[in-house]
Amino acid sequence: MKKIGVGILGFGTVGAGVAAGLIKNREVMTERTGIDIELRKIADLDITTDRGVAVDPAILTTDAFAVVNDPEIDVVVELIGGTGIAKKLVVAAIEAGKPVVTANKKLLAEYGNEIFPLAAEKGVDIFFGASVGGGIPVIRSLRDGLVGNEIETIYGILNGTCNYILTTMEKEGLPFDVVLKNAQELGFAEADPTLDVDGFDTLHKGAILAALAYGIQPDVHQLSVEGIRNKVEAEDIKYAAEFGYKIKLLAIIKKHEDEIELRVAPTLVPADGMLASVSGVFNAALIKSDLDDKTLYYGRGAGRMPTASTVIGDIADVARNLAAGTHRATAMPVTKREFKLMDPGSVKSRYYVRVSIKDAAGSFATTAGIFAKNAVSFSAAMQKDSDSSNGFATVIIITHETSKASMDATLKEIAENAISGAAPICLGIED
Amino acid sequence: MKKIGVGILGFGTVGAGVAAGLIKNREVMTERTGIDIELRKIADLDITTDRGVAVDPAILTTDAFAVVNDPEIDVVVELIGGTGIAKKLVVAAIEAGKPVVTANKKLLAEYGNEIFPLAAEKGVDIFFGASVGGGIPVIRSLRDGLVGNEIETIYGILNGTCNYILTTMEKEGLPFDVVLKNAQELGFAEADPTLDVDGFDTLHKGAILAALAYGIQPDVHQLSVEGIRNKVEAEDIKYAAEFGYKIKLLAIIKKHEDEIELRVAPTLVPADGMLASVSGVFNAALIKSDLDDKTLYYGRGAGRMPTASTVIGDIADVARNLAAGTHRATAMPVTKREFKLMDPGSVKSRYYVRVSIKDAAGSFATTAGIFAKNAVSFSAAMQKDSDSSNGFATVIIITHETSKASMDATLKEIAENAISGAAPICLGIED
Repeated sequence: MKKIGVGILGFGTVGAGVAAGLIKNREVMTERTGIDIELRKIADLDITTDRGVAVDPAILTTDAFAVVNDPEIDVVVELIGGTGIAKKLVVAAIEAGKPVVTANKKLLAEYGNEIFPLAAEKGVDIFFGASVGGGIPVIRSLRDGLVGNEIETIYGILNGTCNYILTTMEKEGLPFDVVLKNAQELGFAEADPTLDVDGFDTLHKGAILAALAYGIQPDVHQLSVEGIRNKVEAEDIKYAAEFGYKIKLLAIIKKHEDEIELRVAPTLVPADGMLASVSGVFNAALIKSDLDDKTLYYGRGAGRMPTASTVIGDIADVARNLAAGTHRATAMPVTKREFKLMDPGSVKSRYYVRVSIKDAAGSFATTAGIFAKNAVSFSAAMQKDSDSSNGFATVIIITHETSKASMDATLKEIAENAISGAAPICLGIED
Repeated sequence: MKKIGVGILGFGTVGAGVAAGLIKNREVMTERTGIDIELRKIADLDITTDRGVAVDPAILTTDAFAVVNDPEIDVVVELIGGTGIAKKLVVAAIEAGKPVVTANKKLLAEYGNEIFPLAAEKGVDIFFGASVGGGIPVIRSLRDGLVGNEIETIYGILNGTCNYILTTMEKEGLPFDVVLKNAQELGFAEADPTLDVDGFDTLHKGAILAALAYGIQPDVHQLSVEGIRNKVEAEDIKYAAEFGYKIKLLAIIKKHEDEIELRVAPTLVPADGMLASVSGVFNAALIKSDLDDKTLYYGRGAGRMPTASTVIGDIADVARNLAAGTHRATAMPVTKREFKLMDPGSVKSRYYVRVSIKDAAGSFATTAGIFAKNAVSFSAAMQKDSDSSNGFATVIIITHETSKASMDATLKEIAENAISGAAPICLGIED
């Protein structure tokens, strides 16, 4: 039986999980692969802290480059993170002709253009399944299961923190700030939650999915990103429910002929659909493709063992290739098609709009007139009981499909009109 | 660039779908695999009927063995079905050293013990991703993504006909017979629906998933199978909803130490969970594994193009292996562990029980006494308004966990008691 030696760089949360999984399920993996995959080295600057994994102390080292260069190590697993030493080690491994498994989204986003061609040149595998979706096989599915499909749409709930906050706001009717604070105390949100709640983490993951679907390398700085902070209030969740929707933070990826729509926004999705059922810290990707129609992949988008599960799946793929003396021809698709990123203003959608207008004769007519002037038509509208304490009424409008540019012009005009109270809230709808 | 030639045997529904997909997305697949996968031959007894796919008539032939033996054909795709000529062709292809992709569940179930070892001996791939779950990558996920996990539980909604019927019964409050008839008229159910509605199709698929998870080859004739016919009525769907559940036909696979529970039964699942959201003809598998926790795979479990999508995914895997001069070491896991199939009477579950009892003093007490005597305890109970027309009352009981044997003894005793009206209905609950 072929034996493959694994070296882990970075004995942190995920590194310890991968070590634990490789040790626990070594025999199960052999049943399925016909290969004995052995954990042989773990490198970390700190090799004294107890990680809760029973590893032979003799395999621990502080010298990561020695692991990369050890002839007993066939697969290098980079779990250090960041773009400093992690990049040097990944490049060194590839240069040494060794395949790399990594969960380092940032490294691939910033240096993928350097690392993927180098791996291709050296003829080694680079696998990165855990960089998007943690324990969910969304990268694997785009690459393998759906390989024969043109991808039409991807909706991704890709950030557990945001989904936990939205789910809790919905269940408990609490405002964003209170739920965020609770989430921070429970360890479900970072002390600085910007990357999560303002949508950037979702955007980076969406960009990787778009790269896998279309072979494009989008510049994330040019993309439209809206998070949930200052965008979704508990009352919007309640009103959306009255129209049969839930609100989720989505990465939205769509192919329109030769243009790719790629953006992140809190979005209304049908309450009786699969995406609406994704609760708490769970993640999911709903992919519509030309042959397979809708498929959905659901699971834990983060966390030590789910992420380790995906890393180990990649290690097994690499081990199979090594045992067969081969490697994968393409880490990322290479397209000859010329895709353009869609201008955010051209994106078309239906919208949920909440406006606060003076509780006086003519206010609704004025509001409706501004929508009409911008050619944004109503699909449904509902005036809620006015709040007598401040003299403003809340009106919810569900629009027919319109361009983002028209919607923005409408919102601006309403905000500037004398009838308007608090700034309007506007969220897209994907049915 | 490497070129791989594909030959399709069987130009029926799925065969035509695979041909259409290979032609339409040839360039997309090359982007992703670096290989040019070319459809070169299609064999069928009928090569004159229009299948709605624009194939060059020169590639059509009535001689399937000529396709298998054609040196231009690198991958043989068997979509004839059954165990007659299909088996001869698959064996001939493997004997000729050619990898096979098939969606033929029956062939693998009946002759897998012959075909898998032959493929291993000849060193060729045999892929069968479309044999369970149509367009859903459940086989691929068990084999690859979850390779590092011990599988703890699989719940599969694997039959679109049953799920369509249950969903329609729920939405429209109609009885099984009426919905079945409508489904037959709409083409969602066969004229003889036995394989579907009595659970056998789900059982065969569950057996393949158990084989992939544990390396066992269960004899399906020894397994417990309950379908939805005569088991689920519209009123049960309504009552289940009152307790927060929906009813789905599930393949249930669980590992208990060295025993594998494998059965098919209509089952109550939480109404706010992912399985409950799987509506209509859609299928899903919810897998709980030791590292990855819960993951779910959802999509169309049947149909021409979704099934073709999975077949094409397998063709791409085989093409990659061929281009690299290799093949997969294991088509099915080979275990040294000795698993036993669990005795159906030992299976433990919570239950939903509907009993019809005489609307008279002491009936409820007698019923409760029979449960108590068999050590089956109540978690919840609800007596519905009695039907004055027949003098019987309906009582719904939700039990704590108990063995199937205890539950069966309880039901038998109730049915035989003088207080009892119509036979009790009993469905398991999986939370």
